[in-house]
Amino acid sequence: MKRDFQDEKFMSLAIGLAKKGIGKTHPNPAVGAVITKAGKVISSAYHRKAGAMHAEAMALQKAGRLARGATLYGTLEACSHYGKTPPCADAIIKSGIKRAVFSMKDPNPVNSGRGIERLKKAGIKTECGLLEKESSELNRPFIKYMRARLPYVTLKMAQSIDGKIADPNGRSKWITSERSRQLAHKMRSQNDAVMIGVNTLIKDDPLLTDRTSKNGRQPVRVIVDTRLRTPSESRVFSNGDAAGGKVLIAGGRSASPEKKALLEKNGAQVILLPENGRHVDLKALMKHLAGMNITSILCEGGGELCASLLQERLADEALFFISPRIIGGRTSPTSCGGAGNDIKKSLNLRDVSVRRVGEDILVRGLI
Amino acid sequence: MKRDFQDEKFMSLAIGLAKKGIGKTHPNPAVGAVITKAGKVISSAYHRKAGAMHAEAMALQKAGRLARGATLYGTLEACSHYGKTPPCADAIIKSGIKRAVFSMKDPNPVNSGRGIERLKKAGIKTECGLLEKESSELNRPFIKYMRARLPYVTLKMAQSIDGKIADPNGRSKWITSERSRQLAHKMRSQNDAVMIGVNTLIKDDPLLTDRTSKNGRQPVRVIVDTRLRTPSESRVFSNGDAAGGKVLIAGGRSASPEKKALLEKNGAQVILLPENGRHVDLKALMKHLAGMNITSILCEGGGELCASLLQERLADEALFFISPRIIGGRTSPTSCGGAGNDIKKSLNLRDVSVRRVGEDILVRGLI
Repeated sequence: MKRDFQDEKFMSLAIGLAKKGIGKTHPNPAVGAVITKAGKVISSAYHRKAGAMHAEAMALQKAGRLARGATLYGTLEACSHYGKTPPCADAIIKSGIKRAVFSMKDPNPVNSGRGIERLKKAGIKTECGLLEKESSELNRPFIKYMRARLPYVTLKMAQSIDGKIADPNGRSKWITSERSRQLAHKMRSQNDAVMIGVNTLIKDDPLLTDRTSKNGRQPVRVIVDTRLRTPSESRVFSNGDAAGGKVLIAGGRSASPEKKALLEKNGAQVILLPENGRHVDLKALMKHLAGMNITSILCEGGGELCASLLQERLADEALFFISPRIIGGRTSPTSCGGAGNDIKKSLNLRDVSVRRVGEDILVRGLI
Repeated sequence: MKRDFQDEKFMSLAIGLAKKGIGKTHPNPAVGAVITKAGKVISSAYHRKAGAMHAEAMALQKAGRLARGATLYGTLEACSHYGKTPPCADAIIKSGIKRAVFSMKDPNPVNSGRGIERLKKAGIKTECGLLEKESSELNRPFIKYMRARLPYVTLKMAQSIDGKIADPNGRSKWITSERSRQLAHKMRSQNDAVMIGVNTLIKDDPLLTDRTSKNGRQPVRVIVDTRLRTPSESRVFSNGDAAGGKVLIAGGRSASPEKKALLEKNGAQVILLPENGRHVDLKALMKHLAGMNITSILCEGGGELCASLLQERLADEALFFISPRIIGGRTSPTSCGGAGNDIKKSLNLRDVSVRRVGEDILVRGLI
């Protein structure tokens, strides 16, 4: 696409609007739209939540007759299919919009490219690809889920600066500060599921609920537990001080049926999956979760699960909450265990950002 | 001291000047001085290097007769003793200065308090303690050395974000970026000595020289090597592409005399020290180094030496160069090994600062 600063300005505005919807539109993507005429904004909107109007439709409604002859900027290709709302492409055509600029194609295969085709056929000058990198950042989980049919996996680590997630006695309460933990809680409700390995469950006995947000959405709690060692008295079954999401335990095919029955009696959903070496096949687990409409997962450890997810290329993003303290210990567990990589094959994070969260340091990077 | 914004302003100026001397004044402290009259700066100076004029004396010389009736701000109590230069206290008295404000007492026991006493006796209104925290930051190594008669020890780590200083095969070249390594080189010449454990020497075979700066100052290279396992063919003996500092090997009393003789033949100075458990008594080593006028040490690992220095409370500062990459590995060595601490007794860094160095993240904290 030819670079046009006016176009970029309006698309940036649309991206800014879309950001307001992040974390609220599930299972839909966050989308923003801006309508302009003669270099002036006539109307703008963003998608607020699933079932509500799409951004383009809302912007058109606000613009009314003024939309005739105007330009529409959308962060995502307009939809061409009937979902909970009618197709935006039809609304755009009806409105008399003369030109449509999209940032990226819809990764949803039921639409991808069809929305643009329909507009073009109707004689609307339609372009796609403006600020695509920026707008794809808005919806990384949605895009991965649509393209790969796998959930977007964020690894969340809470570690000392020397990489330890627990002291030599296995204690991890608390390495990071109150503020970091609150932020991590909030992240739980922004994901469809949280995931931990059974060793972490046994050691830390976490609730895995979001106890800070008020939106009532609680993630499904997934425990990777090949041999079904999850204790019946675990706090995930009690729900503690907050009603938590469903508990899903992923065991291996060879796990004992009695243990399965016992965990089910406790209220867990237990699925038995093929094993990959000595562990649950994580790719099979991810496919199963995708089938449950789980598009995003926050993995909260431990170091072995983290290493396995990285090894199998199932992780998309890493968040390191680093406390500026030294725990030390040859045998203290670290945030990433497993067999490890040769230094030349070690995994470089991309698009790294660093910020302070209270006393702690939060490093985010893409994998 | 009563807070006076004018006083603070001039002292900040003096501190800013002193900073220019950091790393160049060894074995003297970095000092700045400002002379003012009627709220205006008449002259200012900082100590440039050992043997050169002290900051106060230079500022007085610049001010000449204008110093009469003026106020002098100094980041460190004026000296009252003859060193390479005559005592500044005498020069201040002679100059006709009416008021003297110092940021902190001289930690050097030959002077501490005496400079201030002499000025007071001469009728000069003398105060001390303004912005003391800031000015003590200028000379942390000097202050520790003067007060504790021990070198100031900075732990320098180069690690992956998951805390690893090498991959599972022991390879560590290179975890951090070129820019981080250059900065680390520069730090070598800002310290009187660099120190590593013999395992790191064997694995990495480093030169331990500063190959970036042009000031020609090379730190003494200290190898902690209880059993004298340093190989004769180590690069520290070759000096490689740069003439390095003296090589000092610290062995235990029980080490073999033949090995000692061999290392000495290679050009190393070998000292045998009492052992503390299975290792060289590090406190005895530090006392020995202090006796050699080594006031500051950059410890470059590995994880066991780091842990021992922390355990014995001999470390003052930590610098973590963190590469945003994940190495992983249950058995990969981490930046701090040893037995480790209970989480409640883990070591919190103070005055933590975080900055980016190229792709890497540099975290500095006081211990």
